[in-house]
Amino acid sequence: MGLPKDSGFDLHSKRPTGPRNLITDVAGVTVGQVTVEDESRDIHTGVTAVLPHQGDLFHEKLAAGVAVLNGFGKSAGLVQIEELGTLETPIILTNTLSVGTGLNALVKYMLERNDDIGLTTGTVNCVVTECNDGTLNDIRGLHVTEEHVRQALDNTGETFEEGAVGGGTGMCCLGLKGGIGSASRIVEGKDAAYTVGALVMSNFGEPGNLVIGGVHYDTAKCKRAPLTTEEKKDKGSIIMLLATDAPLNERQLTRLARRSAMALGRVGSYSGNGSGDIAIAFSTANRIPHKSESDTVMIKTLLDDKIDGLFEAGVEAVEEAIISSLYHAKTTVGICGHKRYGLVDYIETFEK
Amino acid sequence: MGLPKDSGFDLHSKRPTGPRNLITDVAGVTVGQVTVEDESRDIHTGVTAVLPHQGDLFHEKLAAGVAVLNGFGKSAGLVQIEELGTLETPIILTNTLSVGTGLNALVKYMLERNDDIGLTTGTVNCVVTECNDGTLNDIRGLHVTEEHVRQALDNTGETFEEGAVGGGTGMCCLGLKGGIGSASRIVEGKDAAYTVGALVMSNFGEPGNLVIGGVHYDTAKCKRAPLTTEEKKDKGSIIMLLATDAPLNERQLTRLARRSAMALGRVGSYSGNGSGDIAIAFSTANRIPHKSESDTVMIKTLLDDKIDGLFEAGVEAVEEAIISSLYHAKTTVGICGHKRYGLVDYIETFEK
Amino acid sequence: MGLPKDSGFDLHSKRPTGPRNLITDVAGVTVGQVTVEDESRDIHTGVTAVLPHQGDLFHEKLAAGVAVLNGFGKSAGLVQIEELGTLETPIILTNTLSVGTGLNALVKYMLERNDDIGLTTGTVNCVVTECNDGTLNDIRGLHVTEEHVRQALDNTGETFEEGAVGGGTGMCCLGLKGGIGSASRIVEGKDAAYTVGALVMSNFGEPGNLVIGGVHYDTAKCKRAPLTTEEKKDKGSIIMLLATDAPLNERQLTRLARRSAMALGRVGSYSGNGSGDIAIAFSTANRIPHKSESDTVMIKTLLDDKIDGLFEAGVEAVEEAIISSLYHAKTTVGICGHKRYGLVDYIETFEK
Amino acid sequence: MGLPKDSGFDLHSKRPTGPRNLITDVAGVTVGQVTVEDESRDIHTGVTAVLPHQGDLFHEKLAAGVAVLNGFGKSAGLVQIEELGTLETPIILTNTLSVGTGLNALVKYMLERNDDIGLTTGTVNCVVTECNDGTLNDIRGLHVTEEHVRQALDNTGETFEEGAVGGGTGMCCLGLKGGIGSASRIVEGKDAAYTVGALVMSNFGEPGNLVIGGVHYDTAKCKRAPLTTEEKKDKGSIIMLLATDAPLNERQLTRLARRSAMALGRVGSYSGNGSGDIAIAFSTANRIPHKSESDTVMIKTLLDDKIDGLFEAGVEAVEEAIISSLYHAKTTVGICGHKRYGLVDYIETFEK
Repeated sequence: MGLPKDSGFDLHSKRPTGPRNLITDVAGVTVGQVTVEDESRDIHTGVTAVLPHQGDLFHEKLAAGVAVLNGFGKSAGLVQIEELGTLETPIILTNTLSVGTGLNALVKYMLERNDDIGLTTGTVNCVVTECNDGTLNDIRGLHVTEEHVRQALDNTGETFEEGAVGGGTGMCCLGLKGGIGSASRIVEGKDAAYTVGALVMSNFGEPGNLVIGGVHYDTAKCKRAPLTTEEKKDKGSIIMLLATDAPLNERQLTRLARRSAMALGRVGSYSGNGSGDIAIAFSTANRIPHKSESDTVMIKTLLDDKIDGLFEAGVEAVEEAIISSLYHAKTTVGICGHKRYGLVDYIETFEK
Repeated sequence: MGLPKDSGFDLHSKRPTGPRNLITDVAGVTVGQVTVEDESRDIHTGVTAVLPHQGDLFHEKLAAGVAVLNGFGKSAGLVQIEELGTLETPIILTNTLSVGTGLNALVKYMLERNDDIGLTTGTVNCVVTECNDGTLNDIRGLHVTEEHVRQALDNTGETFEEGAVGGGTGMCCLGLKGGIGSASRIVEGKDAAYTVGALVMSNFGEPGNLVIGGVHYDTAKCKRAPLTTEEKKDKGSIIMLLATDAPLNERQLTRLARRSAMALGRVGSYSGNGSGDIAIAFSTANRIPHKSESDTVMIKTLLDDKIDGLFEAGVEAVEEAIISSLYHAKTTVGICGHKRYGLVDYIETFEK
Repeated sequence: MGLPKDSGFDLHSKRPTGPRNLITDVAGVTVGQVTVEDESRDIHTGVTAVLPHQGDLFHEKLAAGVAVLNGFGKSAGLVQIEELGTLETPIILTNTLSVGTGLNALVKYMLERNDDIGLTTGTVNCVVTECNDGTLNDIRGLHVTEEHVRQALDNTGETFEEGAVGGGTGMCCLGLKGGIGSASRIVEGKDAAYTVGALVMSNFGEPGNLVIGGVHYDTAKCKRAPLTTEEKKDKGSIIMLLATDAPLNERQLTRLARRSAMALGRVGSYSGNGSGDIAIAFSTANRIPHKSESDTVMIKTLLDDKIDGLFEAGVEAVEEAIISSLYHAKTTVGICGHKRYGLVDYIETFEK
Repeated sequence: MGLPKDSGFDLHSKRPTGPRNLITDVAGVTVGQVTVEDESRDIHTGVTAVLPHQGDLFHEKLAAGVAVLNGFGKSAGLVQIEELGTLETPIILTNTLSVGTGLNALVKYMLERNDDIGLTTGTVNCVVTECNDGTLNDIRGLHVTEEHVRQALDNTGETFEEGAVGGGTGMCCLGLKGGIGSASRIVEGKDAAYTVGALVMSNFGEPGNLVIGGVHYDTAKCKRAPLTTEEKKDKGSIIMLLATDAPLNERQLTRLARRSAMALGRVGSYSGNGSGDIAIAFSTANRIPHKSESDTVMIKTLLDDKIDGLFEAGVEAVEEAIISSLYHAKTTVGICGHKRYGLVDYIETFEK
């Protein structure tokens, strides 16, 4: 649902949101989440799964692009997207040390659905992304299981929760509680209206650097106890997924993904050394066959000259998805007594 | 001088500026400019030259990195910086169709100073950057000459004008008059204080998208005649130079250069299709010999773990340099009667 | 014409050559050359121009990709090809210090043909590539003029000379005389036969490292005076152009261009530090409009699964083009008395 | 041990091998392998582990670079090497669908050795590389366990087997049996002698394309039953690790890694669409601290001008490592009755 209209925040957005104001406004995209929490054992983690379309992804791939804005990150599967320009599996978002478990679960999921993988055709490029939730979660305990990943994959839908849920359960952002956020925008083209949707897992930013719609929220003006700043660094990372039904090819999707840097700039990030800032964009407009009788395929492609609306919509959707992830996140106390306020709790004690 | 303290704009900067608040606060860096204007012939163009140090640049190179944020640009010399990680000539900023003239002039400048180039050693990698000033300038007239470039190179200093001067004479930005801007920041390290300086040639952005220190300046609230928006697109480009005396190596300078994307986001850019957004960063801390008796050299290098202050300072310096380029630019009428207001003229009629 | 069938060399090629065994076997491609020589003044240089198609290139662009195998090079125009995936001008090949002159001439050529550039539309991305011919040519004398470039552009055709001509006049390769070489291959697809053509300007490689069709030609076994080896390094560079009528998109063309590294490996290169090894590939299959009424265009695209024949053909064509550049080059004495044998002169005194 | 001197093959190598002619000639590097075979169940797979040095890798990192020659690959951990220029874990080589298991095992190995990871410092970037051994191995059975990976990590040494062992157990190459191969070269610098070592897991290449030292081995001339060519494509991938004690920084190591493309060209590859050709290079010369009291560190760095010997040595070492992987591999029959000859078995029936 993104940032509610009555939230009190104005992001100065130029374009309307889609009906759900979620990445699932792009037809075919669904999201599933499993939250793994056990306060007594300092477990605050989970899994978010994004299905790019509802068909046979391996045999009907989607064009995709990647932007590694800051590569202090351990996501798997990016290299092949860059080479082949296609996405052929769902995308998993989880904690850093659970990428292996995410891969194992996703490999098995794909093998079950496709008898040919590894036998009569090649293997499969599974995409698993991550942020480090170790500030709140006992990340060394490796509490995400293959079963969790599978549940997320098996229970996706067009509506889903935002905030401290799924892969975002234990994430921190700009000194506050981060998590999963989503938003969408409608872009009027000449021949059609296009949707751009974003889903982020926010875990980046230096405490005190938060900017919402241009308003700087300086920690010093908050009556609440000061933001916890064990190490006051922009560490932690953000994963940004962009989906669109506009017919962008892999190069154009890479360009769209790269624009998410502008959204980061708008909310107060300088992309700190330790922040793995990674964006993946895909388009549902063309399906690229794994095998084909023919040598060639016709790919409907937007002219670059007409792409600016999508670029700006992408920046706006990512910006709102980030703020939405903060807005929906509940105040959380985790490992070592680390406490991160949800944005709503934090802001209510803010000096006007 | 950057944005004056009494400008009425607050960029929420966290770190102090250097003594001049210019890129020349990095010791050794000097800037020279030639403004080429003739209103009767619609000529509004020029050249800005940046000398990275005052010694023999070809034989004592500097570490450097490049970030091509959006490669709709025709700058020359970037590929070799990326491969070798060094800068070995001054940097020229001029209009797009004058890159060849810039190269020719810079080649001759380097040949004169170095008898060995092309004879007993290899050739030289001349760096010439550009934006398209065709909205105001008769760019097709090719009015920049080799002599202009030479004058800029031969008359550099530690103080220089900002605004509609030098390479920035005919540039437009965010619907207003753009140009040359500069700023600097001081970063306290554990062992030393470092300076980060920025110089930009601003020519990007969609009319109506201007943001200063978080405040959105919507065109609709300006009592002045509306911004000219022949083609309301984020076209035009920006060149962003970053200098520092911190001991960053080529990889770290590339990272610093990439952060300029966040500055673009903060001032309202979404890096439009037609905007060649290119950043070059160099460090004066180590001089890398062209030839040496020894096989090896010792390179003082900042640990990445200590780099965040420089990253944030770089974003702040580029952000201020952009706003400063607008602040100092005078309202200009150019070819086809195109008119671009200076920020000061524009803002004074803005509804509070 | 590539390497003649009766040359005595066997490159173990798997696919047939096109009718001319030149890059111009790709329909629409033409090549023009101007050789600039004056022995009394140590002038051995020139210009080669490649027209990718015979129509209005600026308004009907071609998909293109770039591979910077080793970026010790000063070619202009690569960055925009990488961003937009298109080629919109002819390609010039000349000496390193003449890139500025090449740009100026090509800008004027494009301005003449297109009233809109820089006025009602953006500017133009001129592509000028280079190698350092300073071993034989008085490169510091800057003897290439805009007029030379213009003559090359104005006099292109489907047949052209190879060897020490045009941009290749003063080039050296693997201790021998290098220059311009070309070759082509036919690839049988399921639905059509495709042509891949290559044109190189060879100026790379360490003396004594030459390999032809797997046969190593060790300098020590040559009865002729030893190869001149002032500085026995792999310096100098190679420009490799690949043209095809197969419907490859920009990503696939980048992949094709990258494979030219394998051709370099086959002829004895290890891509020395000082060798600017750069490949540009373009496809004539789709024309991409500069402006269009519609938002979108249909792009015929080969499936990656069917691309291997083109990859291998590209490697073979580049390999033969390199050997052909040596084969056709005449023995030349240049500046400082530097002498480089043509391959035919060299090989005839080789110990069997 | 690389290719034995009496193998009958001549690679025309210019530089001497190290004492073992293995990657472990670079002091501190050790290799461990676990071969997982059970013919009755079509299991032919395994794990190879490379320890870059014998100390605390996480807290004393090594400079490293990556070259993704063809990104049809699923290796994990490359992105962070590219961003930070460092390697902080051992490198695992295994089959494609076991990357998740490799990650899980390596994460646990690193957590055990480092109490701080994920608690008082960030997480860890585990590097796991892969090729698809599905032609011979029941890759869908996921037979590599975390225990296998751990055994490989716990039992490394300076000598190790080559051929169909460890991660290479089920690999195929150029129509023959591939696997693990290694070699080294000594490079005389002015001030010191440097060692360059290579270790490859070979699984690439089209049947019939084999070239050894320039000699083309055409399938048609083999009296043995023809090479199995279910799908006669260059599929399968190769992982190429390069180690050196020369003081190369991360940019130079990336350059060294990229040269492995020339080695591929020399042995007959055109880097087919489905071949994930990935190289990682690291240097043991400088140790980069994870944390430090000081802001800076002195990094001994080779001048690029002196790097050519290392480049050529790297190409030669990778070339020999590939041929050595074939030479030592035994003829193997695997899943679906697929049979791949070892090079020695194959070549003995070859027509002279």
